[in-house]
Amino acid sequence: MNIFYVPPAQINNGFAELLDQEAIHASKVMRAREGDKLTIVDGVGGRYEGIVRRITKKSVQVEIKDEQHSLPPKPQLVLGMGIIKKRDRLEFAVEKAIELGAAQIGLFRSEHTIKENVRMDRLESIAVSAMKQSLQSHLCNVEIYHSLDIMLDVVTVDNILVAHEKVDETNGDIDYKSVHNSDRTLLLVGPEGGFSEDEIEEFVNRGADLVSLGPNRLRAETAVVAFLSQFL
Amino acid sequence: MNIFYVPPAQINNGFAELLDQEAIHASKVMRAREGDKLTIVDGVGGRYEGIVRRITKKSVQVEIKDEQHSLPPKPQLVLGMGIIKKRDRLEFAVEKAIELGAAQIGLFRSEHTIKENVRMDRLESIAVSAMKQSLQSHLCNVEIYHSLDIMLDVVTVDNILVAHEKVDETNGDIDYKSVHNSDRTLLLVGPEGGFSEDEIEEFVNRGADLVSLGPNRLRAETAVVAFLSQFL
Repeated sequence: MNIFYVPPAQINNGFAELLDQEAIHASKVMRAREGDKLTIVDGVGGRYEGIVRRITKKSVQVEIKDEQHSLPPKPQLVLGMGIIKKRDRLEFAVEKAIELGAAQIGLFRSEHTIKENVRMDRLESIAVSAMKQSLQSHLCNVEIYHSLDIMLDVVTVDNILVAHEKVDETNGDIDYKSVHNSDRTLLLVGPEGGFSEDEIEEFVNRGADLVSLGPNRLRAETAVVAFLSQFL
Repeated sequence: MNIFYVPPAQINNGFAELLDQEAIHASKVMRAREGDKLTIVDGVGGRYEGIVRRITKKSVQVEIKDEQHSLPPKPQLVLGMGIIKKRDRLEFAVEKAIELGAAQIGLFRSEHTIKENVRMDRLESIAVSAMKQSLQSHLCNVEIYHSLDIMLDVVTVDNILVAHEKVDETNGDIDYKSVHNSDRTLLLVGPEGGFSEDEIEEFVNRGADLVSLGPNRLRAETAVVAFLSQFL
């Protein structure tokens, strides 16, 4: 793929500078040469067409010929999910979530999760790849929050939906209108083991809708993709 | 998990016999002892409660105390998908598809796929695990077909939906009624690279509906989970 990610800090005065992995990929893998065309996305809605001007060991300088800037899609879907213990499943969930439209992902440690270290570098790398793969120019921000409460306080949204396994009178169908009319909707998926009663009560107090993802018992990463798939 | 898979052939005269991996898991991992209770599913709707009677090196004999038989859910969702080259992505797709309700999976080689060997033993193992994980008693049948045409001839369904990226006047929303009223609906997801024009024409000739999974560009395994998630 001929798309490269360069943060805005490295785009100045009509030039973009590829560094680190992007530079290596361009020069060694794609064998870019002076005069070659390539496309750059800056993670904040900018897409640039450029021409390679200078290649050094550690960087590739690109002269920008054309640029377009786009707004992020509305409504923005923010995914809040409990940290999944197994790394490959967690990475799968993050990658799929971004492909399916998550603009931001908050990973939280829950009452039910064991304290695990998370390889954020890998998740950030996955976010960059998923952005390129989906031909998008907005980079999904992936953050870890020490607790669910902290995440709920920090992440500002005007609508909250919680995927909940228990079927009772508070569970219902998804109110698509509420999502469509919002600026930012938080989609909450429980950690393995689900949300605790206290956590569910906290959500309801914050005005969240509890929704069911069907009768099947789903793994956490499957619930993530199933939930986001409802808004395609 | 205290659920074991025993095919009907090994369930006779009020006794079930665990063999191979199931026997090893019961005796060595779960440390089952004579008199222990366990649950068995037979892959065709039967769920049995039993008591361990005899443990040998290679088998575990269980006396059946109670049994229930259930019909498969209607409508049955049959997933047809092009073979995904990378094994871990293919295995994720199969595992998620079964969790999300696929009763049968047909993998086909398409005009666009390179001839790959598929580890069917791993996929069958995944199908058994997914059945247990979802607390189901029907085992999803996973088959490989040498071509899409062969699969379409062999798999009998009364409704076909095809996930198609191209947006034109034939793409539409999903006709949930047609799915709900069917006995068996085939959900077709293209291989990496999508379906060819000829393949699309073949589907339309067979009366299939072309449906869109939204504007995002999705990897094949993501399209699989997104498509199945529409029917939760």
